[in-house]
Amino acid sequence: MSKYVDLSNDIFDDMPVYPNDRKVRLYQDKFLDKDKYNNHILETGMHAGTHIDGPMHLTDCKSYIGELSLDRFTGRGSLLDVRGEKIITYKEKYEDKVREGDIVLLYTGHSEKYGSEEYYTEQPVIDERLAEFLITKKIKMIGMDLPSPDQYPFDIHKKFFRKGILIIENLRNLSELLYVEEFELLAFPLKIKADSSLCRVVARVLD
Amino acid sequence: MSKYVDLSNDIFDDMPVYPNDRKVRLYQDKFLDKDKYNNHILETGMHAGTHIDGPMHLTDCKSYIGELSLDRFTGRGSLLDVRGEKIITYKEKYEDKVREGDIVLLYTGHSEKYGSEEYYTEQPVIDERLAEFLITKKIKMIGMDLPSPDQYPFDIHKKFFRKGILIIENLRNLSELLYVEEFELLAFPLKIKADSSLCRVVARVLD
Repeated sequence: MSKYVDLSNDIFDDMPVYPNDRKVRLYQDKFLDKDKYNNHILETGMHAGTHIDGPMHLTDCKSYIGELSLDRFTGRGSLLDVRGEKIITYKEKYEDKVREGDIVLLYTGHSEKYGSEEYYTEQPVIDERLAEFLITKKIKMIGMDLPSPDQYPFDIHKKFFRKGILIIENLRNLSELLYVEEFELLAFPLKIKADSSLCRVVARVLD
Repeated sequence: MSKYVDLSNDIFDDMPVYPNDRKVRLYQDKFLDKDKYNNHILETGMHAGTHIDGPMHLTDCKSYIGELSLDRFTGRGSLLDVRGEKIITYKEKYEDKVREGDIVLLYTGHSEKYGSEEYYTEQPVIDERLAEFLITKKIKMIGMDLPSPDQYPFDIHKKFFRKGILIIENLRNLSELLYVEEFELLAFPLKIKADSSLCRVVARVLD
């Protein structure tokens, strides 16, 4: 039996969002006793909570995230333990650990601050050297327990997008993958005509 | 290499919704040239397009769909070809075809009418006998290329929910699974505090 690890944050009313992003609204509009069924309405941008940044977010790419090929959103996972690094950089040991087509997850531990102001103001960032290395390795996607791999003007973001590497932001529970031999990542975006998408991100731990 | 079949309908502005449901709004609110990034806003109920009905939709269940165990949303897929049946009923040949823990998909062909009024007014429905059979078989989920397995007062819905079987509605492309030996279904809802959830539904065809 496979074991599933949920790497996604909850979607709820007034959940944490990136500074200056629109608030998320989630509310019940139909009620079983009155309307004979329950329903909820969600009003959200595409960058709230756990989500995938598509290339359209920061480039003039014309493809919506829902149009990208499904095999880009699943593959062998590779967790890099980068706790304690304010500038997350290349290490030689990653040469063997990261393989072509991997989905690389950076475990910083910063998700402990999710929901606080410091989550955004004190976040670690990826440097150019690590980004170049991951591009050379032809990884499929990169994910992290951070609001973003970098900050304005988002050069690292753009570097990844230019190479077709998508970015998963606001992950959690990455500690559960620390001592796991092998896992598969499943992170399909909604089939949506949007730049990016909310996403349920799941690691399947293989026996 | 696995092959992925997308069983999901597009999410777009003013997409088809169940009669009398609120309209879906999807629009771009941030623009690269002006705002330095693109973003889209989605305003939607949880029953638009391809989605999973959770038990809270029609029962007094208190668990949000985002709280249910991940292993309920993936498993061995089993496609039943029920084209031509207005009342979809039990057949003896399903005894061998459907196994415990399967996610059963009903291929009616009715998704050809998706977007038209007839999609809702002329839909086939599942009868009690087939529902009872699938419950006895302890399937995980049932999915279909229909707006619903039944119509008001939704007794079949409630029968499935009482047994913990979730319902995937508005599937498409099921014809692509007709001659497939074996496939796995991946249909994780958003991690959302709602009765039900929009969902990207994917079949992974195994070699």
